[in-house]
Amino acid sequence: MNTSNTGGSVGMFYQPKRIRTVLVANRGEIAVRVIRAAHELGMRAVAVVSDADRDSLAARMADEAIHIGSAHAAKSYLNPAAILAAAQQCGADAVHPGYGFLSENAAFAAQVENAGMILVGPSSSIIATMGDKAKARETAQRADVPTVPGSNGVVLSLDEAREIAARIGYPVMIKAAAGGGGRGIRVAHDAAQLDAELPLAQREAHAAFGNDGVYLERFIARARHIEVQVLGDGNDVVHLFERECSLQRRRQKILEEAPSPSLTPALRKALCASATRLAKQVGYRSAGTLEYLFDETRDKFYFIEMNTRIQVEHPVTEAITGIDLVRETLRIADGEPLRFSQSDIVARGAALECRINAEDPEQDFRPNPGRVDELVWPAGPGVRIDSMLYQGYAVPPFYDSLLAKLIVFDESRPAALARLKRALNELRIGGIKTTATLHRALLEDDEIRAGRYHTNYLEAWMTDWRAKRVAATAGNEEAA
Amino acid sequence: MNTSNTGGSVGMFYQPKRIRTVLVANRGEIAVRVIRAAHELGMRAVAVVSDADRDSLAARMADEAIHIGSAHAAKSYLNPAAILAAAQQCGADAVHPGYGFLSENAAFAAQVENAGMILVGPSSSIIATMGDKAKARETAQRADVPTVPGSNGVVLSLDEAREIAARIGYPVMIKAAAGGGGRGIRVAHDAAQLDAELPLAQREAHAAFGNDGVYLERFIARARHIEVQVLGDGNDVVHLFERECSLQRRRQKILEEAPSPSLTPALRKALCASATRLAKQVGYRSAGTLEYLFDETRDKFYFIEMNTRIQVEHPVTEAITGIDLVRETLRIADGEPLRFSQSDIVARGAALECRINAEDPEQDFRPNPGRVDELVWPAGPGVRIDSMLYQGYAVPPFYDSLLAKLIVFDESRPAALARLKRALNELRIGGIKTTATLHRALLEDDEIRAGRYHTNYLEAWMTDWRAKRVAATAGNEEAA
Repeated sequence: MNTSNTGGSVGMFYQPKRIRTVLVANRGEIAVRVIRAAHELGMRAVAVVSDADRDSLAARMADEAIHIGSAHAAKSYLNPAAILAAAQQCGADAVHPGYGFLSENAAFAAQVENAGMILVGPSSSIIATMGDKAKARETAQRADVPTVPGSNGVVLSLDEAREIAARIGYPVMIKAAAGGGGRGIRVAHDAAQLDAELPLAQREAHAAFGNDGVYLERFIARARHIEVQVLGDGNDVVHLFERECSLQRRRQKILEEAPSPSLTPALRKALCASATRLAKQVGYRSAGTLEYLFDETRDKFYFIEMNTRIQVEHPVTEAITGIDLVRETLRIADGEPLRFSQSDIVARGAALECRINAEDPEQDFRPNPGRVDELVWPAGPGVRIDSMLYQGYAVPPFYDSLLAKLIVFDESRPAALARLKRALNELRIGGIKTTATLHRALLEDDEIRAGRYHTNYLEAWMTDWRAKRVAATAGNEEAA
Repeated sequence: MNTSNTGGSVGMFYQPKRIRTVLVANRGEIAVRVIRAAHELGMRAVAVVSDADRDSLAARMADEAIHIGSAHAAKSYLNPAAILAAAQQCGADAVHPGYGFLSENAAFAAQVENAGMILVGPSSSIIATMGDKAKARETAQRADVPTVPGSNGVVLSLDEAREIAARIGYPVMIKAAAGGGGRGIRVAHDAAQLDAELPLAQREAHAAFGNDGVYLERFIARARHIEVQVLGDGNDVVHLFERECSLQRRRQKILEEAPSPSLTPALRKALCASATRLAKQVGYRSAGTLEYLFDETRDKFYFIEMNTRIQVEHPVTEAITGIDLVRETLRIADGEPLRFSQSDIVARGAALECRINAEDPEQDFRPNPGRVDELVWPAGPGVRIDSMLYQGYAVPPFYDSLLAKLIVFDESRPAALARLKRALNELRIGGIKTTATLHRALLEDDEIRAGRYHTNYLEAWMTDWRAKRVAATAGNEEAA
């Protein structure tokens, strides 16, 4: 009998080759997520913390926590110098950037590489290429991946605009070339409207961005946001099927699921194959996500952009494939080749993820930081929680409001919906308002239950929901 | 857009036919488990509570909680009249007995049936048959399922004993026919020892039980406890593979896993087929478990008994098969046929379950009830918690000490071991002592990591562990 306290090599799951210590260059639930994966692989995990995060769950779970600056993100989580200094201080072999913050910053990635450390992600040059929308679009076209039909650059005259609009079909969007985030967009439903709107759009673009360049793109009224997860090792790439994330508010995803309820098997196959093609084209390494718009009325999908990092909603993919994506990216960063061929990856059942945010959905999603004075997690079969909360934790006001991801998995989408409902009913987060109330209401909506929703659905639904809540409150007051 | 608050029938997972309300005739984590399954199926779940359980998580989660008596189990959870009165009071269509308490009480099952309600389990007559060890053994033999070689009844003379022992092979156990729970057992390693021990055993049996009848059974020195999960609907039966539960202390299981690390594929097939045969022989309905001893030295398995109820360790089977056993038993009780043929059921990966008890493993497992003043559950991928704890809950001293089941699932046994280690490191239960410390130590043991253990392994290991802890403490005191 051997009761030595070494953990031994008997039955050992993984023996790190290059990465003994990984610096987790992030905070919140994704820092916790990366620490868990690193520990399962036998790697040391070191957290970085701002002034606001000294008591964080990540700091508690990490083997070491290094203070990197003030609560202001620019002074800490967005400060490459502070992160690199922490990595050197703890002798990190690798840096995991998580999502957000510096995760898609090619210059930071290059600094990590130049310091002789491993970035858990793709190379800085791939981050740079795919982070440039025009280059990403060109790459897609070279890989024969459809992009949204449009002018492929700035439109120089009204004649050219008419010609392009006639080719791609009305309605078309007129977008400011220097714009972004949905600003400076006009819609033309026919040639007459195009004639009227184009000069206005150019003038507006000049006023707003100092550049009157505009371009045209097909307008998809009821688009669905579908994305494909890929995993590469620099030589080979596999896909892990798709996620649907069409329930959004101001481009923030609220509820995600896998598989998408809107794809036929043939479309799924074509979509996923296109993503693999594109990722292979650039020799992609690590986990990446290709985002598409899906036009249900035409059964067409269009590549829009690639995220060269792990996504918030990665757990729904883990649930249906049984593959731990974060662990795989650490293994790949450690020099391992992909462990799966495409045929090894099989999707089963259905998974849903609710983002539980510290926001009050009845007060226009006003952020609601503060102390969590009661915490009861849902549990039991098919329920997963990814969170940085613990009872007594004070949610700081400085960062994004994501508190927890509640993920359910079950044999089918109807079963997963039933499981999510019971899990949301079990959840108690006391002391702060959260979006759990919104999720409970969304689950009662027949269209969402049926999987019939698109990227504009939630905002319209919210207007209706708020009106009903106001009416209900007024009714209660009258009755009182 | 339909934002009605009905939950609607759109995308509905299950529509109960006969069971609108189920009475959960149990407490603790299994009551919580049953409530979760009932809610997912759209059934009302009513809890019964003793004086000690008014603040229980089950009471909070149930649609209704009915007080049935004092903290003393005989006055509440073991009181059929009180349970039946509660069932009638809430209009229950069915009663779920959980495990322990009245779950294998054939008389109670008959009372439920006679009251026109559905017992979520097999019929009272099957419970009666399989609850009688001699009848269960006969049933097994009729189904051509091997039982432990032995005398098949009381040995009448020394000559007969010698003949039987020669046939089954030494060493043999001499067991008191009226004994149980390991009492009144002697081992003979050869004929001379049998001659000496048999009269002693008879005299001892007479003194202890007023009956000098003894029988012989092959002694298996390093037996493994392996059990097969079956699910039947009264017509057909399928198995859901096996669990290994050899890590026991005083016949209480401590750590369970699926699949068993000790079976070859051929043995697994034969074992599971034998369980299905036996369950089919009695027309089994609901979830049941057939317990076997496995003799590694001979590669032979022997049926010992059947548990006609859900087991504590059912989640490891749910993890590897993806089938929700508790939900299936409720559907079967609701009149549904089995939804799977044997070939539909595929086992994947590996699962481990730790029983976290309110006991101090360093003080001979002294029960340690009290208030939980800190509670941090492990979470993230592949981690499941089944528990009735919440922060602030006072664990009552009146019942068994099971607080929580920590279940992990992963792609392989080594991966599951790594995941369990990180999960146990995340777990914090403050205010009371638990067996989590023991589990952390067990995970460092090379033999356990390698899957080389048997039913006597843990008790020997404990002796060694305690000695080392004492030595370590003494060493620390010297150094201080």
